[in-house]
Amino acid sequence: MPLNQNASIEITAYRWVPEFAQGLVRDLRARWALEEAGLDYRVRLLDVQSKPADYVHEQPFEQVPCFSDGTVRIFESGAIVQYIGEKSEALLPREPQAKYRAIQWTYAALNSVEPAVQQRVLLDAFYADQEWAELRKPSADEFARLKLKRVSDWLGDKSYLEGDRFTIGDLMMITVLRLADKGGLVDATPNLSAYIRRGQNRPAFQQALSNQLAAFREHASEGVAA
Amino acid sequence: MPLNQNASIEITAYRWVPEFAQGLVRDLRARWALEEAGLDYRVRLLDVQSKPADYVHEQPFEQVPCFSDGTVRIFESGAIVQYIGEKSEALLPREPQAKYRAIQWTYAALNSVEPAVQQRVLLDAFYADQEWAELRKPSADEFARLKLKRVSDWLGDKSYLEGDRFTIGDLMMITVLRLADKGGLVDATPNLSAYIRRGQNRPAFQQALSNQLAAFREHASEGVAA
Repeated sequence: MPLNQNASIEITAYRWVPEFAQGLVRDLRARWALEEAGLDYRVRLLDVQSKPADYVHEQPFEQVPCFSDGTVRIFESGAIVQYIGEKSEALLPREPQAKYRAIQWTYAALNSVEPAVQQRVLLDAFYADQEWAELRKPSADEFARLKLKRVSDWLGDKSYLEGDRFTIGDLMMITVLRLADKGGLVDATPNLSAYIRRGQNRPAFQQALSNQLAAFREHASEGVAA
Repeated sequence: MPLNQNASIEITAYRWVPEFAQGLVRDLRARWALEEAGLDYRVRLLDVQSKPADYVHEQPFEQVPCFSDGTVRIFESGAIVQYIGEKSEALLPREPQAKYRAIQWTYAALNSVEPAVQQRVLLDAFYADQEWAELRKPSADEFARLKLKRVSDWLGDKSYLEGDRFTIGDLMMITVLRLADKGGLVDATPNLSAYIRRGQNRPAFQQALSNQLAAFREHASEGVAA
């Protein structure tokens, strides 16, 4: 289990978040990649509602995760997962075509799929009491499902996006699809449901999720105001 | 001028798009990067409303650009620009920290900024006649401006996001900010306006834009139905 207080790799994560966000916060992506790569890491926990004043100089959008390892200090889960991939062929092939297909899917997950999914899911999560949200729902739903259908059509009966081999592109896409699944958007695409399960069944994912949730459990009594 | 019918690099672009999208279509990012890198390329033009039936096997979301060079065949403008950056130190430094800071900003442009900007700008572009769009506008506006303020605060009085040196991260961020500017969202952040101008004044940008627009002019009489 790569959680190690003395590790040179450090990521930031939240001490606690409300239940609907538990298991979805983006440090999960970094944790998952680190577990797949077998790299030890330690975690700097932040309070979601009262971050240190200087955190904005590390992460201009004041989000998690940030990553540092003594060589680089970076933010954005996509960049972090790609950097971890460069350290482990298990996540990112070395041959140029296979490597850039994996990187391409990382970008696709974050730019061609996640915004559509998030736009739909956040209508229920954040705007349920807003008049416009109810009116917006049909078109946002249609748009998100269209993007998901495109991923489903591409995946077909393959295990992973580019065939048999799991890469950072799958890691990123599966974390996006988990959000879609939480919003009830993948029922019509059984191959995506199976693909999510395939990802979630990986021991590295299980360990990463368990470690994220353990911190939330430990700090549950403090709540957000801690 | 790297446009060359015999080049080994090929990108896809649209033959013609409606005026509001001219200068914003994403092949501009690939063209700009190729001009900065001094790499010859040719263009395969597609009709925006009637793409070849097999294009979906190249690009599952049926968008542009796709990129091929005999070594890789990839889609997603972020991945394409990063791949071009790997070929040219002018766009992507070689030292790990500087390299991954540039990659990090590429992801930030596409995932932390563009979705918020697009969500706001598309309310006017695509949904102006929808009742929900008018009600949604204030919150979408506030969210987009918050993200832009974070970029503005980070940039401060630097020329580029990480200092004096232009990278793929700036290329990507500036293309996102041009969309924000078109939507009237950068008036309150003069340093972002200056940053956009700084990018647009680069000869490589000018040439890339001119080449995208030249195709639209040439095929203007055909319209979308061509």
